[in-house]
Parts: sequence; C-alpha cells; structure tokens
Amino acid sequence: MASPGSKKLTGLVAATFTPLTPEGEINLAMIGPYIDFLLEKQGVRNVFVNGTTGEGMSFSVEERKRLAEEWCQRGKGKLEQVIVHVGCMSLKDSQDLARHAAEVGADGIAVIAPSFFKPSDADALRQFLQEVAATAQGLPFYYYHIPALTGVNLRARDVVEGIEKCIPSFHGLKFSGQDLLDFGQCVSYSQPHWSLLYGMDEQLLAALALGANGAVGSTYNYLGSKVNSLLSAFDKGELSQARNLQFQVQDVLSYAVKQGFDVAVNKQLMSEVSGLALGPPRLPLKPCPHPRILSIAQKVQQVL
Amino acid sequence: MASPGSKKLTGLVAATFTPLTPEGEINLAMIGPYIDFLLEKQGVRNVFVNGTTGEGMSFSVEERKRLAEEWCQRGKGKLEQVIVHVGCMSLKDSQDLARHAAEVGADGIAVIAPSFFKPSDADALRQFLQEVAATAQGLPFYYYHIPALTGVNLRARDVVEGIEKCIPSFHGLKFSGQDLLDFGQCVSYSQPHWSLLYGMDEQLLAALALGANGAVGSTYNYLGSKVNSLLSAFDKGELSQARNLQFQVQDVLSYAVKQGFDVAVNKQLMSEVSGLALGPPRLPLKPCPHPRILSIAQKVQQVL
Amino acid sequence: MASPGSKKLTGLVAATFTPLTPEGEINLAMIGPYIDFLLEKQGVRNVFVNGTTGEGMSFSVEERKRLAEEWCQRGKGKLEQVIVHVGCMSLKDSQDLARHAAEVGADGIAVIAPSFFKPSDADALRQFLQEVAATAQGLPFYYYHIPALTGVNLRARDVVEGIEKCIPSFHGLKFSGQDLLDFGQCVSYSQPHWSLLYGMDEQLLAALALGANGAVGSTYNYLGSKVNSLLSAFDKGELSQARNLQFQVQDVLSYAVKQGFDVAVNKQLMSEVSGLALGPPRLPLKPCPHPRILSIAQKVQQVL
Amino acid sequence: MASPGSKKLTGLVAATFTPLTPEGEINLAMIGPYIDFLLEKQGVRNVFVNGTTGEGMSFSVEERKRLAEEWCQRGKGKLEQVIVHVGCMSLKDSQDLARHAAEVGADGIAVIAPSFFKPSDADALRQFLQEVAATAQGLPFYYYHIPALTGVNLRARDVVEGIEKCIPSFHGLKFSGQDLLDFGQCVSYSQPHWSLLYGMDEQLLAALALGANGAVGSTYNYLGSKVNSLLSAFDKGELSQARNLQFQVQDVLSYAVKQGFDVAVNKQLMSEVSGLALGPPRLPLKPCPHPRILSIAQKVQQVL
Repeated sequence: MASPGSKKLTGLVAATFTPLTPEGEINLAMIGPYIDFLLEKQGVRNVFVNGTTGEGMSFSVEERKRLAEEWCQRGKGKLEQVIVHVGCMSLKDSQDLARHAAEVGADGIAVIAPSFFKPSDADALRQFLQEVAATAQGLPFYYYHIPALTGVNLRARDVVEGIEKCIPSFHGLKFSGQDLLDFGQCVSYSQPHWSLLYGMDEQLLAALALGANGAVGSTYNYLGSKVNSLLSAFDKGELSQARNLQFQVQDVLSYAVKQGFDVAVNKQLMSEVSGLALGPPRLPLKPCPHPRILSIAQKVQQVL
Repeated sequence: MASPGSKKLTGLVAATFTPLTPEGEINLAMIGPYIDFLLEKQGVRNVFVNGTTGEGMSFSVEERKRLAEEWCQRGKGKLEQVIVHVGCMSLKDSQDLARHAAEVGADGIAVIAPSFFKPSDADALRQFLQEVAATAQGLPFYYYHIPALTGVNLRARDVVEGIEKCIPSFHGLKFSGQDLLDFGQCVSYSQPHWSLLYGMDEQLLAALALGANGAVGSTYNYLGSKVNSLLSAFDKGELSQARNLQFQVQDVLSYAVKQGFDVAVNKQLMSEVSGLALGPPRLPLKPCPHPRILSIAQKVQQVL
Repeated sequence: MASPGSKKLTGLVAATFTPLTPEGEINLAMIGPYIDFLLEKQGVRNVFVNGTTGEGMSFSVEERKRLAEEWCQRGKGKLEQVIVHVGCMSLKDSQDLARHAAEVGADGIAVIAPSFFKPSDADALRQFLQEVAATAQGLPFYYYHIPALTGVNLRARDVVEGIEKCIPSFHGLKFSGQDLLDFGQCVSYSQPHWSLLYGMDEQLLAALALGANGAVGSTYNYLGSKVNSLLSAFDKGELSQARNLQFQVQDVLSYAVKQGFDVAVNKQLMSEVSGLALGPPRLPLKPCPHPRILSIAQKVQQVL
Repeated sequence: MASPGSKKLTGLVAATFTPLTPEGEINLAMIGPYIDFLLEKQGVRNVFVNGTTGEGMSFSVEERKRLAEEWCQRGKGKLEQVIVHVGCMSLKDSQDLARHAAEVGADGIAVIAPSFFKPSDADALRQFLQEVAATAQGLPFYYYHIPALTGVNLRARDVVEGIEKCIPSFHGLKFSGQDLLDFGQCVSYSQPHWSLLYGMDEQLLAALALGANGAVGSTYNYLGSKVNSLLSAFDKGELSQARNLQFQVQDVLSYAVKQGFDVAVNKQLMSEVSGLALGPPRLPLKPCPHPRILSIAQKVQQVL
C-alpha cells in the first residue's frame, strides 16, 4: 500500500454561488469581482462552478454554459483552477456541458450521480461517468460524491474500483459524506495523482486525519482565511491548533443550522459578508428573511 | 362538503415508455404503432408522456420536445388525451417545455416537484408550479405527486390549498403515493372539474373507494383491459369482483418486485408483451437480463 | 383462491390507553369505568391491551401482567374479546407475558416485531413469533405489523407464509401499514378463520375495499360510534356514505397531526373527550400543553 | 474555551459479547476466561457490558442482573473499569438495573435513548436519563448515543446541554455516530472530567483528531492490540502510522460488511478468533453459516 499520508495538501476550493440579478437572471458581471474577493480577501485560488452551491441543477444547459465560460475567462491568469460541474439528470446534457467545458478552457470537470433515476449499482454509475468523461478526454475528471443529497447510496470506493481504466483522465473525488470508512478506503486505494477533496466543511479535520489532501466547500467563500490557517496548522502537526480552528467553524455552522441553513440562506449570507450582490436564489429555493441572515453573519464575523 | 363520490370515472391513462433505437436514440417511428396497440389491444385512450415511466428526466429538452410533438400528432383524432409531463429540475426548462406543449396541441401538462433542490414548503412548490403553468395558460394543469421518488415529503393537500387562484387552469393530480389520508383530503377539497388520478397500480381499488376518479400508470400499457374490467366492476358496485381483479394485478406486481422491478425492467417487459421494439433504457438505467423479463412476462400472460 | 370478500365484518377493537395515576403509577381502578365507557358510549366491545397506544413497551413485565389481568377480569362477561399484546424486545419476556395472558383468560395475544435488534428476514421473525406462541398454545395468536414504528421492513405476506404450520393457533394480523399491495396479498392468502384487522384509522375504508374484515385503532376509543356507522355503511354497499364518514375521521386526524399528535397527546385527548382521568404518559413521552388538547377535542366534538 | 486537546487518552473499552450456552442460556462460566483473554491477548482492561454488542435488549432484567454481577465480580482486581449498560425501553426496568449495578460494584453505568417510544426532544431524553441516574447516585453516568440504531435523531450536544445540573454524576458519552459536527461540539462543551468515548471503530482516528479521548467498540475484543498501537501512534503525533493502522482496521470491517455483518456474525467471529465458545446469538438474531465466519476470521488474522 502506498503511504496514504504522502499526498501534498492542495489549496482550498470554493464551491461558488451563482450571481443572479434581482430579477433572477444570471449576472455574469459579478463574476470578476467575485474572483477578486476570493483571491484578495479569502486567499482562495480554486473554484468549483455550477455545483450544488452554485444551484447548477436549477439552470438550463445554456445558462450553465455561459456561467462556465465566464468563470474560465475571468479566472484565467488569476485562479489556479476552475473546475466545472457538468452533472445533470440527462446524460446528453452532461456530455454537452463536458464538451463545452473543454472548449472554454476549464481545468477540470466533475460529475454528480444522477439522482432522479438512480444507478442501481456502482457499475451503472461508472458507465454514466465514463460516457460523460469520454466527451472531454484529457480534462481532469472528478467524481462528486454526495449521497445524502442524491440518495444514491453507493460506496465511493466501489465507484472508483478500476475507474482509471474506464476514465484515463480520472483525477479524484469531491467526497461530501460522513462515511469515513468509505472515504478512508478511497484514500488507501487512490493513485498518487488523485486529489481527495473533502466536502463537509464542518468536519474537514477528521478527513485530513484520514488522508484528505484538499477541501471543496461553500463556507470557503467567506471562511477561507480561517480554514487556510487550519490547513496550515494541520500541515505543521499542530493538531490542537487545527482543532481549535475547526471548532470555530463548527460554532458558525451549528448556529446556522439551528437558524435554518440551505443553499438560499448560504448565498444571502455570502452577499452579506462579502458585500457582493449575488441576488436571490432560483425557485424552488426561496429567499430567507433578512434578519436571519444578519444573525448568522454576525456569528461569522465573530470568528473572523 | 360536495359529495366526493359524484365524480364520473374517466378512462385509464397509460404512462408511456419512450421508444429508443437499439443505439439509444429516440425512435419516433414507434409511436404510431404504440398508440394503435394501446387503442386496439388495451382499450386505453389516454397517455401520459415523458413522465417517470417515459424516462423524461433522462432526455434533453430538445428530445422531450420532439417526443411530445410526435405523441400529439400521432394521437390526434385517435387518443382522447395526451398529457405531457414538463417537469424538470430547472424552472426555465419546464417553462420551455410547457410553452412547447401548448404549441403542439397537448391536452394537458403535468409537473413533478423538483427533487434535487427540494421546495422547503408547500408555498415554494406552488410558486414553482405556478411559474410553469403561467407559460401555458389555458392548458389543463396537473400536479404530479410522487414523494417516494422525489423525496419531497410535502402533503399534496397542502400543495393544492388555494391553487385554483394561482393556477386558473389547475385540473387535478396524479397522486402516486400510499398516504390515503392525504389523498382523501385532496378528494374532499377538490373542485368538481378536477381529476383525481391515482398512480399506484397495485392498490388502485383502495383509492377508488376513497374517491379517485381515474388512474395513470405504467402497467396499463399491458394490463389495460384487465384494469378496465376492474373500473367497470367498481362502477357497478361489484366490489368483490373488483377486488378479485385487483388481486390479480397484485400477483403480477408482487412477482415482478421480487424479481427486481424498475423502469428498465418494465420497459423491456412492455416490449416482450406488446411485440413493440421499445429498445433499451437510457443510462443511468441499465438493461436487465432477458430471462428475468421472460419470467415476468409469463406471469402477465397468466392473468390476461 | 377463496373469495376474499367472504369474511364477515367483525366489530371494532379499541387499542386502549393505560390509565396512570397523577404520579405515574398504573391505575387499575380506572379500567372498569373505561370498559363501561367503551361499551356504553362507543359501542365497542373488543380491546387490544398493552399495545402501542397502551404504551406497553414503557412498562415492566410485572406492570404489564397486572394490567392484562385487570382488563381480562373486568372485561369478563362484558367485552367480547380482550387481546393482550405481549411483544417485547426480549423473547423471554414475551414468553413470560404470553404464558401469563393464557392464565388470566385473555381471548388472544398479539406480538409485534422486535425492533431494537431487527430480524434480518421473515424466517427470523417467524421463529421469534413461534417461540412466543408455543408458550400459549391454543390461544389465538395475531401478528402485529407496524413497520413505520418498528423499522422492520419485512412484508407481512412473507411473514405469514406457511405460518399456520409453525403456529397452529395463528389467527390473523393487525396490519398497521400503508402498503396495500402487501395487505391485499395477506388477504388473498388468508385462511377462512383469520382476522384481517386494519390498523390505520385514517384510511380504514381503503383496507375494507381490499378485504379487511375488522379494525384495531386508538381513535375507536372516542370515534367508535362514528366508525361503527362507517362499517355498517360499507357492509350495506353504501360506499358514498362510508366515504363521507371516513372523510370526517380524516378531518379530525389531519387536524390533530398538524397540531402535533403522538401517543401522549392521544391519551390526554381521550381523557378530555371521555371524562376518564387516564393520567400522564410515561417517559420518554412527555405530557402536552392542555390548550392543544382542548383544540383537538373540539375538532372531535364537531364530528360526533 | 478550555483547550479541547488536553484530555488524556484512556485505554480501550471492549463492548463485550454475552456468552450463551449452546441451548441459548446465559453462560456465566465463560466470563472469567473472557476477561483473561481481553487482558492477556488484547491488552484491554475496560469493558462495556450488556450493550448493543452484548445483546442487552434481548435479555430479561433478571438475566441482565446476573450478567452484570458476574462481570463485576470476575473483573474485580483485574479490570480497570466495568461499565454496565442499563438502558431499556421501560424506565422502571432501567432504574431497577441502575440500582443493581451500583450494588454489585459497577464502575459506571450507561443509558441508550429509548427507541420504541422516542423522546420528542432533548429535554425528554435528558429527563429519562436523569430519572435513571437518580437511582444510582454517585456512579459515573454515560449517555450512549447511537442514532442510526435507535432512530432517535437528537443531537448529542443538545442532550448534554446543562446535563451536569440534572445528573451530577454525568461522566461522558459513548458517541456512536458519524456526525462529527455534533461530536466536536460535545468535545468543546465537555467538562474536564468527562470522557468522550468514540464508538465507530472504523473511523476512530477521525474522532481522535477532533478530541475523542477514548474508544468503546466491539472490534476491540479481537483487534485490541492493533488499536492500542493506533492510540499510541496518535498520542506520539505519528499520524501517518496511526492512519496506516486505521486503514488496516477499515480493510477488515469493509470486508466483513460486504460479507454481511451484524451482532450475530460479530459474536461468532469473536468465538472463532478467540477460541472462547460464546455460543449462538439470541432471537431475533440468527446464527450465520460458519464458512462466512471463517472467511472474515481469515481477514482478521491477516492484519494481526
């Protein structure tokens, strides 16, 4: 077994929100300032676009293409990596988006398990992923594992079994789950060039202990500096310090969850904290009353 | 309270499969023969297109449009009703499909709850439905309730509260759930012109007792005559006869479930029983081994 | 197949609450008046003791014995049937209670699936039931099926497969579930002497249509007369009338559920409606504020 | 905030199996040799008795008392701690067992959330725990949190809020859950004398990183030495080594889970690996075929 501790930590990846105008149309003009905010205020140089946080599934294929293109163009020369999420319920739509992501210069693509019709086993899911990856050959490919949201309760370890043969460009996982047996087994099975990006911000330290070498999450939009410190403390073996920082993140998230926390709330929170006008969520998500946002924003400010 | 037993029974609605070529592309040429089969062999004169049985979510918007158009054109003058399902994860896509359904002459549209991002309450869902309905004003609108599949556990009764004010074209529900308290409350709340179509074929009789006035389901593709007899027996007050027929349907479905039964199996079963070459399912669904299909088809033949 | 409609309807069975003193000790003195109330005000002549409604699992074996004995003694010559629930997490405790029920003259015993350790398949559950039944041979034995509460998701139809060979005294089911495919298959498999008692009061009519020949439920403690009318209407083929009565029951239960409805609330509601002082629930259930009880009681009064 | 890393690691606690005779009666004679095995072969000096692994819920109160007494007597002077689990569905039974545990010299008691009737909020559960603890004042009291098994989805952090005021003898948690946000918040809230024992053997290292200071689990019956090494590596800051050891444990458990792994299989596995004849499980658990046990035992041997 290759030493699972040998992967070098990579920088944080912000799962980005999608800016909308007050009328609910995509607001491409906001993407440049958004990138500057991440770089200058958060020390975050990687983004994950059109994912869950970005309400990707709520946009049309055409809208997703325009968003992906803008993020790639604006990020060029500034961001290290723009990973575009191209997962859809429809395989053809995913393929269309993957092809487009390659054309507009994305640094990688990611695909979530289709969740309306659910793959019945790991093989069915792997076939789906393979059909998407084949349309963007060479582009680093990530499997986005988030069973609590998709209801696809396949072990990631089973999904990645032999995946490098089906998908030569396979490059790692965004693992957004609590099953650290499954995660650990992905780590110990992983190839040296794979990235094992953990996606539950509230317990990142646990995954780092088990071999995660990076993190993708929505809170890194506004808690990026804080979590960069956590990564740095962990890297230096200062576990007690890392734990203190993780507990601060937990305090914020625990508070937010008690207030009611979903992608809509999170997006408004980001607007509040960053000063960027990211607009409303799109239906079926509804905006949340402003006082709740203010209350959570205060909690965020306390730990900054 | 208006007498809930006063609704006249409507004919069965077949939730249709989508014919594909062996290569997995939509096969419009098969739709004409499919309609003839339903009319001539099953006595079924209404169809529900691009729904769950039709793998609607697995197709691109463009493909769904072409399918809807073909069903409407081929069905003209033959079928009584073509209801097109236009629900999508993306509101814009749903609106696009609703507009198109009106253009191509659909007799009604239906919308499922978006299930990746889930509406947080009945109001959010009603808003989503309203935004879709508004693009196809005048076209009878059905809410498609199927909580076990969507994971959207809102009571249908709460969703339809005051819905005629938001959606003047509201015309009823396809209720595919086991909660007959919720269903009964929809019946007793319903307007005279609403249709209360029950969607769990294995327990249709239960819903009829509670006031359902019609049924939409996949098994009516091949058990249509049998269930027409059930409806007729129920209508004449021959409950014992209706029950016997329901038990026969249950025998088939119970057997199928034990063998492993999903949309893919069901579609292949329809090909086997009807002789229509409906082709494979689309990923993430996988074809199932033929012997299993044959075994279930035999069970179907036994009750015909 | 024996005609499934041939079973004669039996009278309602009230799932009884357990009277406690204000201090939380079992209050045997209340059982006599409770029986009189059921007979005189509700027209209910059968009881199900120490079940879910009776908080059976919250009492010690000794307490359950004393309760069972009192119900049997007080009910003698008055009630038609006293069915004692003897299910426990521990097989030995269940056997102990079954033996005791036979001694004190119960008319039948019932056993729920053990739910902490869950039987892995129907065979394991059938073995468990058999071991209990064997200690009370000759006493009619009922399997109490309530998967939503136990989390034991085995089909009742699979549990009763060949059960008459393992349990010669097997006499039927209390089926408290929404899966009417499973229920219908139990009906069509059932022996002539089995009772198929349905346990979800809010949708009894649905189960009657599918062949239920009786009902056990908590609401029959206070809505017994109403539901006796429902049974009578159904028996005479007056389906529309039966449906109207079912809708009234649904109105009450729907209202109660919106207010928050559990065994504790239900018990307090019974005290309020009947005038019997049944006392508090036992921990881990907590009493509910009185205004909520009053509000639900008003709703009950409206349909009486 | 007190530094959450300051707790000293405590030794492993084995969640013990309950030895039965081949006929299924409790086999007290096996407890002495069992203790010797844990001490001599596993380096484990603490036991958790009558818990989930010990099938506590499947035994009568009387049986549980005899087991607790024997473990306490045989362990005296040998074991460091005997923690007796006294949780039951019935509060009175739990109180009875708690009182008895104090009498026979247990070093602590633990209580699981009652799971048939579920506490509706943290306050109801805390009241239940308090009523049990009050009968064994002074005896260290642990709350046993295992939501996936009980279905009681209350946050442990909410349960322990202010618990030292209700239960002066409160001493910590056995936390058997994957929600490390909740766990971390328990750690940061904990008093200096609390023990934070993590209960999911497959991801212990994750919990250690977040501040667990001990572990209770069934695999420490046969993987105790291995996990003692893990603890020791972690304590010395050798994270990479700890991770390698954790991955070995994961390999075993992942294999076992694929084979089918429950308390019955686990108990037979322990018999196979230890040479102690622990007998069959008790119904509703069924013994598993021996070849499966042998296959898992081989996997265990490979990592020893």
